[in-house]
This record gives sequence, C-alpha cells and structure tokens, in this order.
Amino acid sequence: MKKSKAAVLGATGMVGQRFLALLENNPFFEVSALGASERSAGKKYKEAVAGRWVVEGGIPEKFAEMVVEKCEPGIDAEIVFGALDSSIAEPIEQAFAKEGYAVSSNTRCHRMDEDVPLMIPEVNPGHLEIIETQKKNRGWDGFIVTNPNCSTIAMVLGLNPLHRKFGLEKIMVTTMQALSGAGYPGVASLDILDNVLPYIKNEEEKMQSEPLKIWSELKDGKFVNANINISAHCNRVNVKDGHLEAISVALKEKASLDEVKKTLRDFRGEPQKLGLPSAPKQPVIVMEGEARPQPRLDRMVERGMASVVGRLREDPILDYKLLLLGHNTIRGAAGCAILNAELLKAKKYI
Amino acid sequence: MKKSKAAVLGATGMVGQRFLALLENNPFFEVSALGASERSAGKKYKEAVAGRWVVEGGIPEKFAEMVVEKCEPGIDAEIVFGALDSSIAEPIEQAFAKEGYAVSSNTRCHRMDEDVPLMIPEVNPGHLEIIETQKKNRGWDGFIVTNPNCSTIAMVLGLNPLHRKFGLEKIMVTTMQALSGAGYPGVASLDILDNVLPYIKNEEEKMQSEPLKIWSELKDGKFVNANINISAHCNRVNVKDGHLEAISVALKEKASLDEVKKTLRDFRGEPQKLGLPSAPKQPVIVMEGEARPQPRLDRMVERGMASVVGRLREDPILDYKLLLLGHNTIRGAAGCAILNAELLKAKKYI
Amino acid sequence: MKKSKAAVLGATGMVGQRFLALLENNPFFEVSALGASERSAGKKYKEAVAGRWVVEGGIPEKFAEMVVEKCEPGIDAEIVFGALDSSIAEPIEQAFAKEGYAVSSNTRCHRMDEDVPLMIPEVNPGHLEIIETQKKNRGWDGFIVTNPNCSTIAMVLGLNPLHRKFGLEKIMVTTMQALSGAGYPGVASLDILDNVLPYIKNEEEKMQSEPLKIWSELKDGKFVNANINISAHCNRVNVKDGHLEAISVALKEKASLDEVKKTLRDFRGEPQKLGLPSAPKQPVIVMEGEARPQPRLDRMVERGMASVVGRLREDPILDYKLLLLGHNTIRGAAGCAILNAELLKAKKYI
Amino acid sequence: MKKSKAAVLGATGMVGQRFLALLENNPFFEVSALGASERSAGKKYKEAVAGRWVVEGGIPEKFAEMVVEKCEPGIDAEIVFGALDSSIAEPIEQAFAKEGYAVSSNTRCHRMDEDVPLMIPEVNPGHLEIIETQKKNRGWDGFIVTNPNCSTIAMVLGLNPLHRKFGLEKIMVTTMQALSGAGYPGVASLDILDNVLPYIKNEEEKMQSEPLKIWSELKDGKFVNANINISAHCNRVNVKDGHLEAISVALKEKASLDEVKKTLRDFRGEPQKLGLPSAPKQPVIVMEGEARPQPRLDRMVERGMASVVGRLREDPILDYKLLLLGHNTIRGAAGCAILNAELLKAKKYI
Repeated sequence: MKKSKAAVLGATGMVGQRFLALLENNPFFEVSALGASERSAGKKYKEAVAGRWVVEGGIPEKFAEMVVEKCEPGIDAEIVFGALDSSIAEPIEQAFAKEGYAVSSNTRCHRMDEDVPLMIPEVNPGHLEIIETQKKNRGWDGFIVTNPNCSTIAMVLGLNPLHRKFGLEKIMVTTMQALSGAGYPGVASLDILDNVLPYIKNEEEKMQSEPLKIWSELKDGKFVNANINISAHCNRVNVKDGHLEAISVALKEKASLDEVKKTLRDFRGEPQKLGLPSAPKQPVIVMEGEARPQPRLDRMVERGMASVVGRLREDPILDYKLLLLGHNTIRGAAGCAILNAELLKAKKYI
Repeated sequence: MKKSKAAVLGATGMVGQRFLALLENNPFFEVSALGASERSAGKKYKEAVAGRWVVEGGIPEKFAEMVVEKCEPGIDAEIVFGALDSSIAEPIEQAFAKEGYAVSSNTRCHRMDEDVPLMIPEVNPGHLEIIETQKKNRGWDGFIVTNPNCSTIAMVLGLNPLHRKFGLEKIMVTTMQALSGAGYPGVASLDILDNVLPYIKNEEEKMQSEPLKIWSELKDGKFVNANINISAHCNRVNVKDGHLEAISVALKEKASLDEVKKTLRDFRGEPQKLGLPSAPKQPVIVMEGEARPQPRLDRMVERGMASVVGRLREDPILDYKLLLLGHNTIRGAAGCAILNAELLKAKKYI
Repeated sequence: MKKSKAAVLGATGMVGQRFLALLENNPFFEVSALGASERSAGKKYKEAVAGRWVVEGGIPEKFAEMVVEKCEPGIDAEIVFGALDSSIAEPIEQAFAKEGYAVSSNTRCHRMDEDVPLMIPEVNPGHLEIIETQKKNRGWDGFIVTNPNCSTIAMVLGLNPLHRKFGLEKIMVTTMQALSGAGYPGVASLDILDNVLPYIKNEEEKMQSEPLKIWSELKDGKFVNANINISAHCNRVNVKDGHLEAISVALKEKASLDEVKKTLRDFRGEPQKLGLPSAPKQPVIVMEGEARPQPRLDRMVERGMASVVGRLREDPILDYKLLLLGHNTIRGAAGCAILNAELLKAKKYI
Repeated sequence: MKKSKAAVLGATGMVGQRFLALLENNPFFEVSALGASERSAGKKYKEAVAGRWVVEGGIPEKFAEMVVEKCEPGIDAEIVFGALDSSIAEPIEQAFAKEGYAVSSNTRCHRMDEDVPLMIPEVNPGHLEIIETQKKNRGWDGFIVTNPNCSTIAMVLGLNPLHRKFGLEKIMVTTMQALSGAGYPGVASLDILDNVLPYIKNEEEKMQSEPLKIWSELKDGKFVNANINISAHCNRVNVKDGHLEAISVALKEKASLDEVKKTLRDFRGEPQKLGLPSAPKQPVIVMEGEARPQPRLDRMVERGMASVVGRLREDPILDYKLLLLGHNTIRGAAGCAILNAELLKAKKYI
C-alpha cells in the first residue's frame, strides 16, 4: 500500500509531539507537513519546539529539520491530524475539510456535531458512514472525523465488550487522571504536590455525554443515542501519564463474573480483524494481581493502545466493579486519531 | 473538672505520636504514662522515638523526658489510648480492660465485637450504653470503646446529617487515601511516585461493614445493623495526610439540593452540645468553590476534626454526589479516640 | 508604641499573601491598604484573590473584606511592603519613595543600587545609614530598603556568625530550592514530577553577587564590597517550601569544629537585642541528627525565620561543610522585609 | 563468538531484575541460572518475584518459567553476576570465585580489596591485570571483579576524559540521587514527599575514596592511589532513576572551556574500540540547553549507559563547574557489571 501524506496541525504542542512520535515509523502515513502557530511558522521544527519537547526519546530525527508551516489549506497532505488548541481549532479544521482534506481531529470542536463521527475504531467503525452525509450537508470535498475525550476513550473501549454482549444500563465512574491530560504547562506544581484536584473543567459532562453518541445507532443518517445512565466524578492526581478509573456497572442482561472476564479478554474489533498497524493485539487486557492496573507500571501495555482492566469483582449496589487504566496521550488522544485514520485508509476513505 | 490520667499504648508509632501531639494541652486528660514495645521500655521518650517523630512541630517538650513503660496493666492511668499495631493489640487491650482501665482504642481488634461500641461521638453517642453489657459479659472492671477505620469515620461523620434526616439507602464511594494511613514506613516511595495504588488491604470491607454497625440501633442490648447498601473502591494516592472520597448517595426520603446542603451545615451532635474540648465547632463543613475540598489546602479545617464536603450536586444515577475530605490521622484516628474519651468523661464513665 | 499604617503592594500574589499572613497580628504594623493590579482594584480582597490563596489557614478574616486599591501614591500608609512582580515594580516603588513613603521591598529592582541598603537585620543593620544619602541623591521624601534574594538570605544569615568571627574566604554552594520560590503558577507539574531542574534563571548570579554587598563596609557613603569568592550551583527540586543548600566554606582564620558550631549557635544580632517582634530568638539553629535539616520537617523552626544548619563537618578541600535550610517565602521574602521594617521603626526611620 | 553461560545471584531484587532486563538479548551471555534466597529457591522465577518486579516492560518471557536456585557453587554458569544484598554477599561471592567462576559483582564487599579490580571499562581496563595476582594470593581458580558505587561510576566516567588529558586536582560534588539507589522498599514515601533527605549512609565516603582506586596506577602488582582531593555532599531527592551531580573541578593543567568540552565529547575508551555490545557509542555526552541534563528527560540517553554532562561553565573558585547525570541502576549498577563482563570476555578472561 502506498503511504498517504499526512500533516500534523499543532505539531509543537504536547499532543502534536505525541502524534509525531507515534507517526515516526507508521506504515500507512508519511508526515509531509508540520503546522503550527504563526510564531513558529518558518522555523525548523527543532527550533520551534526547542525546550518544550516532552516525549521520551527526544525529537525524532526525521522531523527535526522540517520547516514548520502555517495551519492553512494548501499544505502538501491528504490527511491532517488535528492537535491544535480547541479554542482556535474549529475554523481551521473546517477550512481543511472544505478544501478536500481528510481531518482526523483530537480536538473537542466537532465531537458532538450531528454529522461528524465520534470514533473509537474498535467500538463504532460503522459510524464512518455518516461521512457521506457530512460532505453533502456541508458541501465539503473533505471531511472531519473526531476521537472522544481521553478519559472517555479508555472507559468506552474497556467496557465496549460488555455493552455489546450484555448491554450496559448504568455506569458510575470516578477518575484519577494524569497531569499530561491538562497539556503543557497545565497544572501548576504547587497545586498538585501533596494534593489531589477534585475537579476538571467540563470533564464530567464529556464522560456523561460522549459515550451515548459513541454507542449510538446510526439510523437514516442520524445518531440515536444509547440509553445508558452515566455518573462521573473526575479528579486530577500527581501522575504523569495514564488515567485510572474506578468503575461500577449495571448490566441489562445478567452475566457471571467469569463470563464478564472472558468477554473482556476475548473481544477483538475491526482494527484487530483488519490488522491495522497501530491497533493493539488485544484491545482490553484483564490483569490479575490484587493491586493492578497501576498507572506507572501498566500504562505502556500494548504500546499504550489498550484499556487495562483489573480488580474485577461483584459490586454491592450495581453488578460489577473494576479498575480501568488507559494511556491518555496515546490511546486517549494521538493514538486514537491515528487509528481512526488507519481505519479510514483501510476503508478507502483516503 | 479534675483531669484524668491517661496513658498512650504504642506511643512511639505514628498514631501514638499524633495522640501525644493532640493531648499536649487537653483540658480533660493528663498524659501520665507512655507505653511501647519492650525494646523502647526504659528509655526516655525522645530517645525511644528518635529520628521517627513525624508530626509537625517536633516532640512536645513535656513528653520528651518521660520514661517509656511496657504495655502492661499496672501503669498509672485511668484511661488508656490504644495505638498499638493491630497484630499485637488484642490481648493487651483486653488485659487493661479486665484490670479496670477504660480503653479508647484506635485498633481494629474489637471494632466488630457484639458488645463493644464503635463510636463517632457525633453519630452514635447512645451506643455507650452497651458498656454495661460488655463489662457484665466479660467480667471486666474496665471496658473498651473503639473508633472506626479512618476512611469510614470521615464518610460516616460527613453523611450522618443526611442519614438522620432523610435516610441513606445507597452509598457508592471511591477513596483517594493519604500515605499516612499506611503507617510508617508504610508505602515505599518507589511504589507511589508517578503512580496510584488501586488497592488497600481490607479497606473496602471495612468501609462496607463498619457504617452498618455505627448507624445500628441498640435494641435489648444488641446492635441491629442499619439497612444501607454500600460499595467502596479504595485507592492510595501520593498525598501525605487527608483522605478524599468521591461519594454518590441515594436517599430514602427525597430532598432538594438546598435542603441537603443546609442539613449538612446545620448539623450539630452531642460533642458540640456538650462543648467537648476536641470537638469541632461545626462537624460538617460545606465548602463552596469548584475544586474543593483539596487535601493539602483543607485537611486542617477545624483543626483536622471535621468532615469537609464540596461539589455537592445531583447524581444522574443515585440522588446526589459530592467530595468529602477528612484528616485521617486526626479525626480518622487519634482525634476520634480522644473525642470518644472526652464523651466518656462527660458522661461519667471515667 | 503606636502601630504604623502599612500597605502591601502586590497583595494578591504569593508573596503578598505571605506578607498578609505574617502581618495579621504584628504589633508594629496595622495593614491599612492592599494594593494590586488594576484588574483587582475595587474588588474585595477575598474576591480578588479567589481561588489563588495558597498559604495554610486561609485568608485572615480581617483582610477578607478590605477593598483592593491601585498601586499609586496616595493610599493611606506610612510604610509600603513591595511584593509586586519585578517586571513592573521599579517605577511604582520609586513613586512611593518620592512621595514620602518608606518602602520595604522584596523585589530585585533596587537591590544592587549604590544608595539602597540590601538588608538582613542580623547581618548589616548599620547599612541603614545609607538612607540619608539615598534621599539626598534622589530628592525623595521617603526611601527604599530591600531584602536579598531568598536563597541568598538563608545562606548569608546562616554563615554570618562565621564571617564576623573568622572571616569567610570561599563559599561553594549547591542549592536544592523549593517550588514556591518560582511564584504561582511557576513551575509546571510536568517539569518537576520525577525530576530535578538544574537551572534557575539569574539565581547563581544573585547568590554570587548579593552577599558581597550585604557584607560590604559602608565607607564615606559608599559600599565597599566584601572580598569573598563564591561559587553557586542552583537547582529546583520537588519541595513546596524551604531552600536546602549544601555549602562548603574556607575561613580566613582557622577554627575548630567546636568553635564553629558554638559560634553559629551563640550568634545574636540587632533584632534579637532589640527584641523585634518578628525576630527569631536564635537566628542560626544548629541541629544534631545525621539527616537534618530536612525541608518538610524543619522549615518552620522559629516560625520560618531562622537559618537551620546541620551535618557540620570537615571538608577535604575547603575547611568545613554543612547543610543549611531556610524558609524561602518567610525568612527568604516577606518575613525578611517585615523584619527590615521593624528595624526601621525601632531605629525611628518611620 | 560462543555465548558464555551466566548466572545472576540475587535475581529477585531490584538490581537483579535490572541485570535480567539488560541480559535478555545480550550477544555475549546466555542466562543459564537464577540464584536467590532459600525462600525463593525451587520456585519459578515469575512466582519468586511476584508483585515485586519493578523494571518497565514486565518480566522477560524467557526468564519467567526458569526455576530459581540457591546461591551455591555448582550451578551451571561460567560467570556469575553479583546482585545480592551486601550484608550476605561476601562469603557467597568468594565461594564462587574459589570454585572457578568469574564473578562480576555489583556489591560493595570487595571493592576496596588490594587485589580486586574496581572497574569502569572506559576508565581503567588495564586493572584487569591484577586478576592473576588475586588468583595466586587467594588460591582461587576463579576471580572477582567489581564495579564502583552508582554515584561514583557516573562521576568518574564523566570526568575521566579531563583527568586523562589535563589531570584532576580537586573535585567538589553535591549529589541529588534517585530513590532506586536505595533499593526496594528503600525510602519511605512519607520521608521523601515534599522533602529532600540530606544524608545517604556511607555514600560520601565511597565517593571520596573509590575514585582514587579507580584512577590508581597498577605498579608491581599494587594499586597506587591517584592524588586527587574530593569532597562530596550526598542527598536523596524525589526522583525514580538517575543521579544528578553538581560538580566543580580544578585541573592540574589549564585548559580552555572549548578544550574541556571537546575533550569530553571526543573521548572513547576500550569498550568503544572493542565494540562491546553494552558499550555506549559515546560514553560522555555533552548537552547544550540551559537546564540540562534532567533526570527524567535524559537518563535513558545511550540506553542509560553514558554520563550526561551539561551547563559546563567557569567556576569562580575552582576551574570549571558542570552538571552530570547517570542512570544509577543501569550504568551505575547492572549495566557496568555487564560491561565489565563483556570486557573480560573480549580479553579472554572467560
């Protein structure tokens, strides 16, 4: 398969850096352009990002000398990955889609739009069908697909096997989220040392609404929301990467603990069937061990692309409770957007 | 009122130190003896504890030169505070009670005994009546009262106003607990740096069972457990002091958000009515502010003796959700045992 | 003595908050005005600082309702404490001094000016004499006194007894400085988690130059710098408050370890002789114990106003080495400026 | 070249785990036996180490099912890597050496013995010659080689180019050492949260004495110590891996800053000439950037096998100062012992 040319918009930010680290050796895409703010445009990437590169292993050599461009249609790419700050991303992403680019966005701008798929490839690959509607509605030559919020991706990917097999009726989730989820500079060290921040702006709302669209049914060109009751408490803890979520669920159809565990472990989705290069072999890992998963020890399981489940046990109020861990800047952001793009390519949308 | 002589058993450990710091200027009790292991017995307290004193402000001068004794009946005291390690405390506490001492214990040994009160003075002061039964049953001249587990105390004290007024039907709680709850040396730094530990041995079981006894009815000399469904997820986070708990509740009787808030704020218990010296003026604080309470900022409200509630809001599954914070080594341990003892003294049990 | 009216400029920032916490019960000064940016002016203090108050214990009640003013001469005060950001402080402090106010500044703006005293009251109280020169030179009715940089104050106060008695020839210092030294929001949590930052802008330069002025001789209205060789390595570590400094010194006159220790302990300066209210009883504490001082355990010794020395021992290259700890936002900032003001008042400059 | 069979003694501990992670794909050695305490002997490795594996990436599969043996001669290996606790290692390592095994030890037991080489392959490869003396002296068929203490290795490797070219006269070093240097469980979380520990037992003594032997001349079968003055201050900071050292040096022969920098960068030692598999390509990295090296960002440069130098500048007292970083459990422990073994094999000692 011929590689498609890909641009990263917002390439100097923390999520942008993660996109580049993950795309360095991607067999589907070749990074052909790096977009950033006017301030950075015209500089070599290594100079534009100087002192702010935070991903382990340093700037990949192949990107260091590339010249950063402005985020405007015209750049040489078939697909653009959206990692701009949400406050400015909306018109830019639309401009690219209008001009015929495929946009795989990690921003929240279009997540809840009626004609934009909110994608996790293992969960709702069929939602790509809405793309035709989108292009027609908006008169665009290209289109936008989005991925959910980081804490939502981990939860929905991890619980999807149960929803598909038994039906989820209720989800109660309390998150302990990593610092990198707030971007850079993000959380002040004086706020988190010897502390927990029991509030993340808009996060509970996202976790309570996005899953309903992700698990929605696409009927006559419209998303019909899933009927699940979700309650989320979101907290920030002093951890670099990896969102940990304490979850209790009620199932529509009763199932034994063993069935639940087996269902989680056996699940494979479209990306696994298609063998997409960024797909985890096993999207939901069930760990044994009485104190797992732990963010530092387990966030890089399956290269950070899986949801890791542990401490599965009966819940005295709902049916089951468990811990769930997902790498927030890999599967929860850049990695999901890349997997979305790989699905688009496998399905000939690019 | 004449001060009663008090001994602290396990005076060199972390909870023992906290007892001493809190008793330094207590108007009801005068520390007359310090008990510890055979290894420490015979040494000056400051030498026995050398290099292991961890409470802010250093060893109170009045205790520094006291000579540590073995933990055996015979020491000069009317009441003994139990801060020994649970693995060895049981026969020692019993020996003291048998010999006529009042024992206010922080250990878990007798918490669930049928004839031992599991006390939070604001919540179940009437349970002191079981003491007569206990003395008769066991043929003891003295008696034992206990306080609950640290995470339970914070939760039950904080929710008690709602239970008394509207009835609690269900409680779902996810804790983010402080390191000091594990004692010293406790949690290894390599285990918690850049990490969360999603398991605390026996903690969920305690949080799910102890509240039923605390809120039980004492009928014909027997505790009849409260009928509440409780589900607990317990986690350890990188915080020194202060257990934070994300809680959702269902009430038996419906109530508006304002009623709930007012009920929490207006609650005063027996210790407040009696003006006990260690009692917080307001046992349940309701903080405004979108990201409160926070462990480092708010754990010392009311000198660490209150439950601090914040982010009270409706819950999409149960009725209400909120954050709750309690200082685990003050109200959650030594401070509660001291308040229990003050209640005993006010009620003429000592 | 009648209290003098005092204003705090930059009252909403981190150092400004510390000024207020320390001035709450000061017997020399009554806070009569709070100055801040135009954005805050006109608001109640508690609203202007909302959500950004970081000092333990919350906003002192007596300041909560005060209305914040703009930082312009005319406000009702005899002395103004300077806690503005250094980037804007210079003209403002000068305007106040010109209009007859005494300015006790914590900013770096005028520290190295030829006619401005750089004061640590225990070290160079005689430097106040330059004030007359300053007023004459500049045609001001008021004047400015400054305190040194936080890491410099701790070091110079702690080593001053040795310099006065034996003469310091060389100082090699490596600092491990606290996060609060960088202000708020200051250091990003992602930069310091599991990390050390081996660079603090301009800090080494300050530590190498300011001590020479503090220990200078005032001759014919001019500061003649002390002749000491200083080399500083400055680092930021993951600690909230308290700068720890590993120091080696060469003395001009030889002295035994016991003499050195006794000299440190016995030292008392002008603030101790005058009994100034914010003065530590003992300005230099020598701790025994093989691993002391430690920031969290020892930063509040003498209410954060002392330099705490430990591990005093011979150095294989210079003469002696030691650890030294100072609370950077108390003695190293607001506390020093307040003590400077108390000295001014005791000496009738206000 | 045929692989040599290698055993790891103390395979379940933290350093032992690091040995295994590093040996997994080593082209010179095949791990043929895992030695540990009697308690672990007979168990599968994955069971013996259960819950205590701390190296990223989990237990290498090829070792998981191996059965742990007691640490006694007779096990199937030509070389044994010593990672036992120093308190018990001495007789065990000697027993192996007596029975003809080559022992590459990371313990401190024999480091300062007169006939045991204290090796850093880039620094003193010629010291292997002492092995013949050792075997003759002790009547052993095998022999012991050791590597220095972790903080010493980083410093001596990093400064070696300067010593070889210009001669080191004085070294002043202040360390900020990582938690993993204290083993597991090691430092209590309550001791290091919001804190620095300004003391590490015996560490300063090691840093002041070991370099003199490493840089000694081997004359007539005796080590003649180098003549360098060293002063060390050792501190523990809240960092997982990577010892950071603030160093000032005086050179015997003057050199410009550029010469110093070039000398550090250009240095290559015996392992680089021989192309040993675990050798870093460039043993001393000089980083530009005003705040580098940093432990979390730079500890894995050259797979953790290099000394990373930054902020090289003139020192006002000695000649130059710099920051130096080394990965304490890789180059500072298991990695150095493995590189020693590779040198032994290349030189036909095994």
